[in-house]
Amino acid sequence: MEEYNIKTRVVGVDISNERTTYAVVDIRGNILAEGNMDTTQYPDVNKFVADLSERIIMLAEANGGFETIRSIGVSCPSANGVTGTVENAANLQWKGYVPLSAMLRDRLGLAVGVSNDAHVSALGEYTYGSAHGMQNFIIISMGVGVGSCFFCNGKEHQGHFGFAGEFGHATAIPNGRLCACSHLGCFEAYVGANGIIQTARELMSESDQPSLMRELEHLSPRTVTECCDKGDELAIEVYRRTGEILGLGLANYANLVDPEAIILTGGISHAGKWLMKPTLKAFDEHVFPNLRGKVKLLRSKLDDRERDVLGASALAWSVPEYSLFK
Amino acid sequence: MEEYNIKTRVVGVDISNERTTYAVVDIRGNILAEGNMDTTQYPDVNKFVADLSERIIMLAEANGGFETIRSIGVSCPSANGVTGTVENAANLQWKGYVPLSAMLRDRLGLAVGVSNDAHVSALGEYTYGSAHGMQNFIIISMGVGVGSCFFCNGKEHQGHFGFAGEFGHATAIPNGRLCACSHLGCFEAYVGANGIIQTARELMSESDQPSLMRELEHLSPRTVTECCDKGDELAIEVYRRTGEILGLGLANYANLVDPEAIILTGGISHAGKWLMKPTLKAFDEHVFPNLRGKVKLLRSKLDDRERDVLGASALAWSVPEYSLFK
Repeated sequence: MEEYNIKTRVVGVDISNERTTYAVVDIRGNILAEGNMDTTQYPDVNKFVADLSERIIMLAEANGGFETIRSIGVSCPSANGVTGTVENAANLQWKGYVPLSAMLRDRLGLAVGVSNDAHVSALGEYTYGSAHGMQNFIIISMGVGVGSCFFCNGKEHQGHFGFAGEFGHATAIPNGRLCACSHLGCFEAYVGANGIIQTARELMSESDQPSLMRELEHLSPRTVTECCDKGDELAIEVYRRTGEILGLGLANYANLVDPEAIILTGGISHAGKWLMKPTLKAFDEHVFPNLRGKVKLLRSKLDDRERDVLGASALAWSVPEYSLFK
Repeated sequence: MEEYNIKTRVVGVDISNERTTYAVVDIRGNILAEGNMDTTQYPDVNKFVADLSERIIMLAEANGGFETIRSIGVSCPSANGVTGTVENAANLQWKGYVPLSAMLRDRLGLAVGVSNDAHVSALGEYTYGSAHGMQNFIIISMGVGVGSCFFCNGKEHQGHFGFAGEFGHATAIPNGRLCACSHLGCFEAYVGANGIIQTARELMSESDQPSLMRELEHLSPRTVTECCDKGDELAIEVYRRTGEILGLGLANYANLVDPEAIILTGGISHAGKWLMKPTLKAFDEHVFPNLRGKVKLLRSKLDDRERDVLGASALAWSVPEYSLFK
């Protein structure tokens, strides 16, 4: 036995299909330094892990030393928090099974926790955001993909196989729209970014009603929201239909999990009242009567980018120090 | 401080809309003695609690003494395990809020745990049945009502407000059949006993196809199953449609909770293969691809009546002894 220097920092890594952000974070959630790299430039995951590891070491060395880093937490789409692997990712270039946790651990010699973006977002909300102090809540992360996670008695529920919270791929409408996952009628196909764009296109082709959306160069949830802000009726209808389906899905989810709150995060949540009002209406219509008026529907107050890196840093603290097992 | 006699028995009580069963159960789950009473004879819940308490005392006195009883566990439809009250029960005569736990505790001077039938069934399966050793599983209890409960990391998930697991009142088909809860399209309206009867009636009126069901004096899930066993095509179609909806609902449930197994209990589960085969088919069609072929779909092996009384006895052990607080 020897005197041991307590390590006071972790590295949080947030991998998205476009960009990877990594940051040195201290015990109280202060981001001390950060960097990023272009995920699309790495069709080969081995090259990605090699470069990311080198960048993490350089960033840590320039900010207090690599020896102050206790562990690494990684947020990655389609990551399985139970096995630490990325499995059949629909929105990444790396196919099949990628043992991301083991690959990073072997390069860096530190403990690595890996979990999917929705789980890490939830951990960020729980540790530093709107869910602080809540024992039971649901987080819905809405972007191109629609992920979710729920906390159960103060712990995130991973599930038996590590796939809990696949709200985006629950069936909203049997035999409905084709989803990216190859199933028909998934919630993601209606309330994910591409689903919202499709709804906008359908509405425009259903009638000749004039709409600012018809003049948009780039149709996206953000530009549709901008049209709503200008009072565009058809754009408002896009989010009304989206909210109708989302509200029904959240009511079914709440009936099963009975959360204190449901927190919406991700790009699409920025549609604000245009999405929230119809979602609340449908939620109240469909939720189990004994729960009506009780479950809080919230929008995240954390910055999207910060939440993921902070959540990843919280995940890093949750894994046992690797040196204990060496 | 004085020498303390460890109490080695509990009483499990199973209240259903028709009958109430109560039993003295020992530490290893042996039912030592039991009795029952007709629930329908008690429109007044005060009279019910008075009679039940007296019967429990008499049964315990005749079987080792009331002083050997540690605590009471009660299974009751619409009971809230967090508050110990029965709330707005759709299938009981007692309306509004009934503080059943406090009422029994005050009469008997013992700690009382109260939970709804689905939660108690799950506890019975976990303690003495097919879910023994499982950390994450779902139980679906299928009778007139369709209840459910899931275990999360080895503990039943009650939810923030005590209403978790309301699978029966999640929406299967938006704007579908009217459910007993006043909502439209709930799963219970399709896969509960009355839903199955309605499906049978609809199928008979849709065509002139001959069927043994047309000659039945009493149409029920049990008699429909008997027709299936005789090879009746239309009766088989009743369960095919039922399984199609149940399988979709269970797939959505599994996508969120990611259980090791889903266990079906209750009268309707006795339809056996007629229900299980189409349910499995629809489940595989709709479940998240990474979970396909992994989640086990099981039928309970415990006797329906025994499971509930044994589950209630397990619930009794889970509450702290009341005498500690007096």
